Amino acid sequence: MVQKIREECGVFGIFDPSGTLPCAQYTYYALYALQHRGQESCGIAVNTNGTVYQHKNIGLVRDVFHEDASLPEGHAAIGHVRFSRTQTKTREDAQPIVSKYTNGFLAVANNGAIWNRAPLAKALEEDGAIFQTDTIAELITHLLSKEWVRSGNIEKALIDVMQKLQGGYSLVIMSPTKIVGARDPLGIRPLCLGRVQGAYMLASESTAFDAVGGEFVRDILPGEVIKINGEGVASYRENCGKESHLCAFEYIYFARPDSVVDGVSIYELRKNIGALLAKRHPADADMVVGVPFSGLCAAIGYAHASGIPFEYALMKNSYVGRDISPGESLKVNAIQSCVKGKRVVLVDDSIVSGITCAKLVELLRSAGAKEVHVRISSPPFIGPCYYGSYIPEKEHLATYRNTMEELCAKLNADSLGFLDTDDLNHMCPDQKIRFCDACYTGRYIAGPDKEEE
Amino acid sequence: MVQKIREECGVFGIFDPSGTLPCAQYTYYALYALQHRGQESCGIAVNTNGTVYQHKNIGLVRDVFHEDASLPEGHAAIGHVRFSRTQTKTREDAQPIVSKYTNGFLAVANNGAIWNRAPLAKALEEDGAIFQTDTIAELITHLLSKEWVRSGNIEKALIDVMQKLQGGYSLVIMSPTKIVGARDPLGIRPLCLGRVQGAYMLASESTAFDAVGGEFVRDILPGEVIKINGEGVASYRENCGKESHLCAFEYIYFARPDSVVDGVSIYELRKNIGALLAKRHPADADMVVGVPFSGLCAAIGYAHASGIPFEYALMKNSYVGRDISPGESLKVNAIQSCVKGKRVVLVDDSIVSGITCAKLVELLRSAGAKEVHVRISSPPFIGPCYYGSYIPEKEHLATYRNTMEELCAKLNADSLGFLDTDDLNHMCPDQKIRFCDACYTGRYIAGPDKEEE
Amino acid sequence: MVQKIREECGVFGIFDPSGTLPCAQYTYYALYALQHRGQESCGIAVNTNGTVYQHKNIGLVRDVFHEDASLPEGHAAIGHVRFSRTQTKTREDAQPIVSKYTNGFLAVANNGAIWNRAPLAKALEEDGAIFQTDTIAELITHLLSKEWVRSGNIEKALIDVMQKLQGGYSLVIMSPTKIVGARDPLGIRPLCLGRVQGAYMLASESTAFDAVGGEFVRDILPGEVIKINGEGVASYRENCGKESHLCAFEYIYFARPDSVVDGVSIYELRKNIGALLAKRHPADADMVVGVPFSGLCAAIGYAHASGIPFEYALMKNSYVGRDISPGESLKVNAIQSCVKGKRVVLVDDSIVSGITCAKLVELLRSAGAKEVHVRISSPPFIGPCYYGSYIPEKEHLATYRNTMEELCAKLNADSLGFLDTDDLNHMCPDQKIRFCDACYTGRYIAGPDKEEE
Amino acid sequence: MVQKIREECGVFGIFDPSGTLPCAQYTYYALYALQHRGQESCGIAVNTNGTVYQHKNIGLVRDVFHEDASLPEGHAAIGHVRFSRTQTKTREDAQPIVSKYTNGFLAVANNGAIWNRAPLAKALEEDGAIFQTDTIAELITHLLSKEWVRSGNIEKALIDVMQKLQGGYSLVIMSPTKIVGARDPLGIRPLCLGRVQGAYMLASESTAFDAVGGEFVRDILPGEVIKINGEGVASYRENCGKESHLCAFEYIYFARPDSVVDGVSIYELRKNIGALLAKRHPADADMVVGVPFSGLCAAIGYAHASGIPFEYALMKNSYVGRDISPGESLKVNAIQSCVKGKRVVLVDDSIVSGITCAKLVELLRSAGAKEVHVRISSPPFIGPCYYGSYIPEKEHLATYRNTMEELCAKLNADSLGFLDTDDLNHMCPDQKIRFCDACYTGRYIAGPDKEEE
Repeated sequence: MVQKIREECGVFGIFDPSGTLPCAQYTYYALYALQHRGQESCGIAVNTNGTVYQHKNIGLVRDVFHEDASLPEGHAAIGHVRFSRTQTKTREDAQPIVSKYTNGFLAVANNGAIWNRAPLAKALEEDGAIFQTDTIAELITHLLSKEWVRSGNIEKALIDVMQKLQGGYSLVIMSPTKIVGARDPLGIRPLCLGRVQGAYMLASESTAFDAVGGEFVRDILPGEVIKINGEGVASYRENCGKESHLCAFEYIYFARPDSVVDGVSIYELRKNIGALLAKRHPADADMVVGVPFSGLCAAIGYAHASGIPFEYALMKNSYVGRDISPGESLKVNAIQSCVKGKRVVLVDDSIVSGITCAKLVELLRSAGAKEVHVRISSPPFIGPCYYGSYIPEKEHLATYRNTMEELCAKLNADSLGFLDTDDLNHMCPDQKIRFCDACYTGRYIAGPDKEEE
Repeated sequence: MVQKIREECGVFGIFDPSGTLPCAQYTYYALYALQHRGQESCGIAVNTNGTVYQHKNIGLVRDVFHEDASLPEGHAAIGHVRFSRTQTKTREDAQPIVSKYTNGFLAVANNGAIWNRAPLAKALEEDGAIFQTDTIAELITHLLSKEWVRSGNIEKALIDVMQKLQGGYSLVIMSPTKIVGARDPLGIRPLCLGRVQGAYMLASESTAFDAVGGEFVRDILPGEVIKINGEGVASYRENCGKESHLCAFEYIYFARPDSVVDGVSIYELRKNIGALLAKRHPADADMVVGVPFSGLCAAIGYAHASGIPFEYALMKNSYVGRDISPGESLKVNAIQSCVKGKRVVLVDDSIVSGITCAKLVELLRSAGAKEVHVRISSPPFIGPCYYGSYIPEKEHLATYRNTMEELCAKLNADSLGFLDTDDLNHMCPDQKIRFCDACYTGRYIAGPDKEEE
Repeated sequence: MVQKIREECGVFGIFDPSGTLPCAQYTYYALYALQHRGQESCGIAVNTNGTVYQHKNIGLVRDVFHEDASLPEGHAAIGHVRFSRTQTKTREDAQPIVSKYTNGFLAVANNGAIWNRAPLAKALEEDGAIFQTDTIAELITHLLSKEWVRSGNIEKALIDVMQKLQGGYSLVIMSPTKIVGARDPLGIRPLCLGRVQGAYMLASESTAFDAVGGEFVRDILPGEVIKINGEGVASYRENCGKESHLCAFEYIYFARPDSVVDGVSIYELRKNIGALLAKRHPADADMVVGVPFSGLCAAIGYAHASGIPFEYALMKNSYVGRDISPGESLKVNAIQSCVKGKRVVLVDDSIVSGITCAKLVELLRSAGAKEVHVRISSPPFIGPCYYGSYIPEKEHLATYRNTMEELCAKLNADSLGFLDTDDLNHMCPDQKIRFCDACYTGRYIAGPDKEEE
Repeated sequence: MVQKIREECGVFGIFDPSGTLPCAQYTYYALYALQHRGQESCGIAVNTNGTVYQHKNIGLVRDVFHEDASLPEGHAAIGHVRFSRTQTKTREDAQPIVSKYTNGFLAVANNGAIWNRAPLAKALEEDGAIFQTDTIAELITHLLSKEWVRSGNIEKALIDVMQKLQGGYSLVIMSPTKIVGARDPLGIRPLCLGRVQGAYMLASESTAFDAVGGEFVRDILPGEVIKINGEGVASYRENCGKESHLCAFEYIYFARPDSVVDGVSIYELRKNIGALLAKRHPADADMVVGVPFSGLCAAIGYAHASGIPFEYALMKNSYVGRDISPGESLKVNAIQSCVKGKRVVLVDDSIVSGITCAKLVELLRSAGAKEVHVRISSPPFIGPCYYGSYIPEKEHLATYRNTMEELCAKLNADSLGFLDTDDLNHMCPDQKIRFCDACYTGRYIAGPDKEEE
């Protein structure tokens, strides 16, 4: 049996050979820029002259790293933001996972999931290993520790460990003398290399480099292991060679519009999806409205392609936090004067249960919209993800339980259009990209079901 | 000498004759919707069977009213969000100001400023009055208490007290049996009436009514006193009769786009300003970009009027709070793929010191923008406000210290255009409105300088 | 009707002409030393070059003044610890009460109660005064403000105001140029003068002077007003002349054993009460045990006088706070090996409901005590206090509801003895002192009942 | 090389077969009672139907377990209070250490130290083990996990693991179906068994049983392993047989006076030490004063034996926390009226650097004491402890750096007397007990030095 997959996170690391940059502070800024990838918990580990200090807790970056929670500075640091759909949030599961040894330490941060955690953990337990968390980062620490003893260095140990891991992940690891990064051989989770004033960085998304005034250097290759230490950057490609399959949902929803992932501008891609939607699912309407903030780019693309004016007719209250839910109109409000008596194209990124979308349609109708045409910038979900995105069980998916007509009626929309699965291949305006679209198509590159066969 | 004027706040009140609505909770939701009007401190006072309970503190609504800070419920409540440019933030100055008497209580919340606070306070002090805060709300409580003794009820007392107050303000007052609202006779600060399930509400902006699932009824007239109690709504217009002069900056910046103030949709007005800017200050450009979030509406208006495409090329990080300032690119980031090699029209709402604007121009240029044409949706500031907006001393105003050419150069912009002062009269697309534009024109309706003459 | 009297607090003030001492910090230390007089809320107001800063909140000194709550330093400061039996604790009622005027400020801290608060407040309200708290300190601020206008200085104003106040109180007041103290003409509440490195101090108890490394100078006289400013100390005795009547319960319970109040060592007095108890209520016992910590001194006195050994057989857990009540044995535990099979004299300071005392008897019996002889170092309560001590309604007083035999049975004690009312006159070992014993004797020096006649 | 030894902690566990007792809450109460054994951090792990929940943090019990930190209830729980002299306090090192396995969990709490941690940890690391903390509890979890796989149950695994551990320790361990306790074969650290309403408990000291209304059953034997599950209590004595050597400092200082350890009443033992001191080091004095609270019992013993009256002349301020150090007189104050002109015997439990003692002598002299005779209820320290007590390096020990005459002069005492090392054998009034006195005598039962030979 496959365990429920549930992690979507962000990772960051920096190594400054000069020892002059405030690496803990830079990591803190980077975590702000990656906060959209995980809002449940966060943490930073910093290397201060060979000693590791850590601070992590449940909460947003601004709450966990308030003034009291001061870390010392150091010449290297890694950080993590985490999202988890587990029932109980626990501080223990926050990352990085830091281990201390007689001759040093190891700090591991992970974004993604593997589907063979259970047998790997069981084998370790049978050998006497103890697990203080449920995280894959701790599992990988165990595997690394065993290989490390044998191979003598972390990058080699990691190359070997990766051959046991089956899934989609990006890792940032810190030891007393270096930081090491790696991306899964399928290339499902993103990881890229950046630079700031002579220091190198690793991050889930390039926007983290902007946050510290640095610059994007290149994407890490699928299967690549990368080492950053006082001598610069070294690349190990033993596990490479396969094609990249970046999670399509990274393009469509997870990544920030200002990030460039695997050479593709997220903003341009999403605008292009909007244009594809306008072509396949045109609407006779007076305005295009995007759901703030995740539907805005596709809405602009739809507007430009269709010639229908873009309006900012849904406002988001940025003061309302995640925990407070006092009714949809407090979080998002419709501008009556704008939509009253008008035919509206409403663009959002995806439909899961359909409840939120139905509320937004109702919000627009209450504000006087005459027609609401819903356009979704992703195909309908039809199956689970084994590579680190949390997608609910089929029974909770509106697209699984309803025909398109039924769903349109349930949303009380005048028309409904999703991104065509075939159009995924044209997502990127002017280049051919490869990606994983298993949750939309059922075509899994690899996964637990395959193995069972 | 006139003291520096410094308040810009938001007020709310609700009275539920049925006693079934959670008035404290509704006030809490309303304060979320009004949070943009004041982020320094906030407070709520609730009437629980004739006894008043209050909670107030420095901080955002989400911080002050966390779970520990539970207020009892009641059939009436008022709330306040506050912004203050005073040096030291103090909890004592948070509103509402609650006073307790042998026969009841009085809770007062105010948005706005008066310029004769000093002589009024001095006269009271000479009569033995004590002031525990610097707020106008406390001053008004003192004046009300004295009149109340004489007139026997608050609405009458308030009518008399208002004749002594010189400035722009909106008041919401709660006593054991009612809530009373008032708007200054010049109509500089906004106040409107709403309704939710048989209960009446008062709020600085109509968006607060949306937040509790209620509806807008009408604007309070300049000088009007309004009473809400078990018998419904009563209006007292003894101080009315003068023309309205809503603060132009409420239209241009303070109010939320989804609010309707004095019959004018803020969203439509701001789009119209964008169109006026496009007409007066056209630009040969590839895209129009608004500074999120205050410049978005005018940018969309500019785009529609000029035919130049609107792009969402500046992204705001909504997780970064006000207190943390780790560099502009963390708060706002430019999307390189979008602006690279392009000619950009950048639309913002105002220029004070010019520092922020210059940073945004630099951000766009670093991202590759070929040209940046700055358009500002308000005229240049030339003088102070005596009615409740905080505008820095002249020497801190970029528009006062520089010619337009100098400023354009300092911003490193390719061109610079402000809303023409004359165009203020055409702000509202299809109706003639009156407003106060003293800070742009030097034409003060009333004020300390006038009196000195 | 008399309102329920409920305050018992501690006050402190310091004025340093040299401006070199950290007066806010000294006040903070002094409040620690006075914490036993009030654990509900506390506050400090400091004079920094003529500007007043304050911080106050619900909680113990260690909680309210943690590192985040930093006050600036100044050359004068006053502080307050408060106990209140009101139903709802509110931050607003914390003291000092700070008022700001055009020409300065006034900060007032009070220990004690007056029984004519209601008519004084009503008269002020009818004149338009507003009350933001229920405190006597705010009432006195109002009265002072009115007189101040007339008399031109605070000490004179205070002399006049005191003639209107009927009760027992000690005041410490700070204005921009001085601090002023006063003690009620009956001398019911204590106040004394101290000195540290050229600065003068006022405090409810001399132990506060020890806490800052200072020394006791003298007690303030009943009715005396004392002014401390740059010129030193000035005394105003217009209201003096009457005899002192210090609250007997200050001697017996409130004050700390290391304080000297009105020339009497609390420690010696309590030991002497123990000796009186031993004489009047001897017991054939094996050991004397004091209830920690308030019964220890009298227990030692009883032991020395009777020749029965003193044992520390009841242990108090000093980590258990006031809010946590997980059973009596967690707060106080009996040492079995000590009391097993022994006859114990148990000494406590007073009996109110009798519940605590009964639990302690049971605790000793469970630990194996063969006999428990209860001795109480105060006479039985028979009436209320109008001067600032909280004594519950008669129906809640075990000594009112029961005969001595009944009470002894209810406590499950082998014998029971209270301090004889006549022995109050011999409380002090070697001098004749005067005090108020109204709650024990019904002989009220003054009070609301008298007036009603 | 021996690592610096630094732990002194308290442990507790409860297993309730009926499932009706609030075991988490009882553990919380027990930790209050054990708080004197460790004030740095604390934690609780609870077994809720086979799932383990934990909460732990830096801070006192009252701070860590405030209302927000609610744990679910369960039928078994263990808890820990920790003291550590490490430089940096870290939350990660708080105990219990909880590990999760495919088939369950393990929670381990430890009091004590072992001197072969380094080689054991190194061997595990070489086998790939990872350490997330520096605690011996985690080391033991590792060893247990390995043995557990082999032996199939925890009690057997523990018996084997104990043969590898060299030091003094007490363990409480919880698995899904039981709790297991163990005491080191030398019997250096205490552990005892208690009972409350059909549930069994383990605790460092019997006072924890009193705190939950339970009763002491018996001491755990040196080397004994004890299992508590649904079938009751089972004892495993494979590692027993050696003599007990309870840490003498447990008797003299660590344990609470109301505890009974290895059959000895701490209170009676300390009083007896006072009597021994009175015999060996008599003083011609007027009173005996104990340093609150650790010197009180011995002072009473000294007083009773010498006939010199006991006085409570030093007062401790129980509101002053450990972190705030505003001068010795705020924490402890001398009662002037008591000591003025008198010859005082001052009794304390030990002298480390001598600084505190010198301050207390000075405090008494400032209060007017004519003579101060210092009596210490332990022998002078001459060496380190390898079994879990933190004793500073020799160079920081006043008794190592000075002759008795020098030290007496440094303390400014009139005379100085320590408990004679020979009298340790007579500590216990009426029975022969065995104990470890290595730090006083240099006679180590076992230890790293021995091995090196």
